Amino acid sequence: MAKVYPASAAQYLNIESTTLIDYDVNRLETFSMFPALKNDCLIRALLRQPVDETPVWMMRQAGRYLPEYRATRARAGDFLALCKNKELACEVTLQPLERYPLDAAILFSDILTIPDAMGLGLYFAEGEGPKFERPITTVADIENLSTNVLTELQYVMDAVHLIRHELAGRVPLIGFSGSPWTLATYMVEGESTRDFKKIKSLLYADPAALHTLLDKLTTVVAAYLNAQIDAGAQVVQIFDTWGGVLSDNAYTDFSLQYIKKIIGQLNTRREDGSVIPVIAFTKGGFPWLDAISRCGCDAVGLDWSIDISVARKLVGDRVALQGNMDPAILRAPIPVIEREVRRILDQFGSHASGSRHIFNLGHGITPDIDPDHAGAFIAAVKRYSIEHH
Amino acid sequence: MAKVYPASAAQYLNIESTTLIDYDVNRLETFSMFPALKNDCLIRALLRQPVDETPVWMMRQAGRYLPEYRATRARAGDFLALCKNKELACEVTLQPLERYPLDAAILFSDILTIPDAMGLGLYFAEGEGPKFERPITTVADIENLSTNVLTELQYVMDAVHLIRHELAGRVPLIGFSGSPWTLATYMVEGESTRDFKKIKSLLYADPAALHTLLDKLTTVVAAYLNAQIDAGAQVVQIFDTWGGVLSDNAYTDFSLQYIKKIIGQLNTRREDGSVIPVIAFTKGGFPWLDAISRCGCDAVGLDWSIDISVARKLVGDRVALQGNMDPAILRAPIPVIEREVRRILDQFGSHASGSRHIFNLGHGITPDIDPDHAGAFIAAVKRYSIEHH
Repeated sequence: MAKVYPASAAQYLNIESTTLIDYDVNRLETFSMFPALKNDCLIRALLRQPVDETPVWMMRQAGRYLPEYRATRARAGDFLALCKNKELACEVTLQPLERYPLDAAILFSDILTIPDAMGLGLYFAEGEGPKFERPITTVADIENLSTNVLTELQYVMDAVHLIRHELAGRVPLIGFSGSPWTLATYMVEGESTRDFKKIKSLLYADPAALHTLLDKLTTVVAAYLNAQIDAGAQVVQIFDTWGGVLSDNAYTDFSLQYIKKIIGQLNTRREDGSVIPVIAFTKGGFPWLDAISRCGCDAVGLDWSIDISVARKLVGDRVALQGNMDPAILRAPIPVIEREVRRILDQFGSHASGSRHIFNLGHGITPDIDPDHAGAFIAAVKRYSIEHH
Repeated sequence: MAKVYPASAAQYLNIESTTLIDYDVNRLETFSMFPALKNDCLIRALLRQPVDETPVWMMRQAGRYLPEYRATRARAGDFLALCKNKELACEVTLQPLERYPLDAAILFSDILTIPDAMGLGLYFAEGEGPKFERPITTVADIENLSTNVLTELQYVMDAVHLIRHELAGRVPLIGFSGSPWTLATYMVEGESTRDFKKIKSLLYADPAALHTLLDKLTTVVAAYLNAQIDAGAQVVQIFDTWGGVLSDNAYTDFSLQYIKKIIGQLNTRREDGSVIPVIAFTKGGFPWLDAISRCGCDAVGLDWSIDISVARKLVGDRVALQGNMDPAILRAPIPVIEREVRRILDQFGSHASGSRHIFNLGHGITPDIDPDHAGAFIAAVKRYSIEHH
């Protein structure tokens, strides 16, 4: 299977440059292998091109709220086994598309695959969230981290490639990674945290060490996203789940700076003339919205604390906006969900002026949501958005 | 002791109006009983009057990071017993003033005294944070809640009165309450939460029931703050710890609306000509900063995600600004703390144009902080702020 990737992927897979296969030919070969895209609404909206309706997808759409997901996960054994099995990862990626008229598939995986591949030993303690067996506790730990980890992450690229084929061009496939800051918080804290005590202590007591870690993560994330693109991802999203816990200037120095560097290294202009749009999402990122919209991304993800009309005014038509319904609203009765969808669409307003909206939740859909409510949400976006285009 | 409160306090203590003592006389008597205020820097800054240096205090300044606090708490037995013992509450309120040249004392208490007095049965499970024995689970629970609870909260007013005397006019005393939304989240969730599942389900599925609860809490909070003012509080702060988890329009409807109503009901213009400044603090409130600055408060509290120069531009000289150093920075070496203080002071800029800054942390000081680091923080504010005035 490894041979189907073009040379640029081979680079990230640590193959000696002298052994590279001819770049263009292989790339075209790879692309020609994938079925043509039938629904390009998401890509067009991300690139600020005209669309007939507002595209919609849901963060964590392949997830525990779906009984079919829970069944597949039970077959896999556990969450990590599911991530590492390309057939089963493909299966759950496609499940929400069978139920709903979504405009995108998103690779089923986890942002913590990177630290796991870097040797920290990811595991999931029952009911406790992700943990690392060997979190970073010293500067030497940071210095010893290897950035040559794409071989360990081959299973992700295999899944991307398989999903892209199995999608059969129905909708585009979104690849993703955590941001360096967000990955670093988990790597230093060793688990989920509320107070970010260890990582912030590192930030203020030894910023140089943290910058070393973030530099290494930047190298890995850029290579990882490029490998996903080479394997078939048609859009990439950078999840900066914890950027919002930083103080104003620390966000710029320790999170956004690295997101910008990564985007600058992505191979988003493809040989076949296609472009891979990049979405940057910082939860709690409103204070820095203007700066985020200038980081080189095509779209900015918004959480639900933001009036999307205010966000639109702030960013103009520089970027598309993705969001921003509170996922908690999916617990409400269906008419409430429909009203909220309508409200957000109205707030965003007309697409006529060139700025674009991708409807999404402001964060991942939670396991307790009734799948029919998710369906009502997606149907409402489809039904109501036509009048705004 | 109850007799020293003026008639307006008696009203809140549910004494029949026919038994009211003459209002003006008693109020003046109450005020005349308190020693004159020597350091009015905080009050002046909150009211946008000229000051010689930037006043400073710390949220949760009477707390576990101080060994003398831990000793008093051990004597009290537990946290709630400490809140309910006026002598010990007074003792811990004054402790940080013995160490540091702070510009304010803040009543030692907890925002959850209100739901406790309303019958929910507050307790603190070891290492788990606050819990309620009888959280709100039905609409009937909301309807049955009594708002006549100031008698149960008499211990708070007793503490305020005692502290005010023991302060001997050194610095002003800040009283406080949680916002209705923040109190409601704990009352419905029954404990601390990360996802606000129950309260948001109530918000979206039965907003009328939640409004009933928030209306009741508004009545209680306004009466509670007025009683604190009558007992001697010279400033009041409304803590909206969880307003930031709401979606844009939900924040306005379910949190800010009620904060505004409370402020409208406060007896802030005193008979002796003094004014009680009101501080409104919504953690994560940046998206609504303009609206918060128009809610009737004198000052807006800021968390650390905000560039204070941007906040200042947004609110002009309509309100003073309080904040906004990340409390995590107190874990850093002292030169880093000093640099950060300087940076925030420089960001705020000169006080010449009439807008005012009260230095504070963006959230409470945490138990793991070295008291010497807190001291270095306060000293740095004193040392560097003079040049901005």
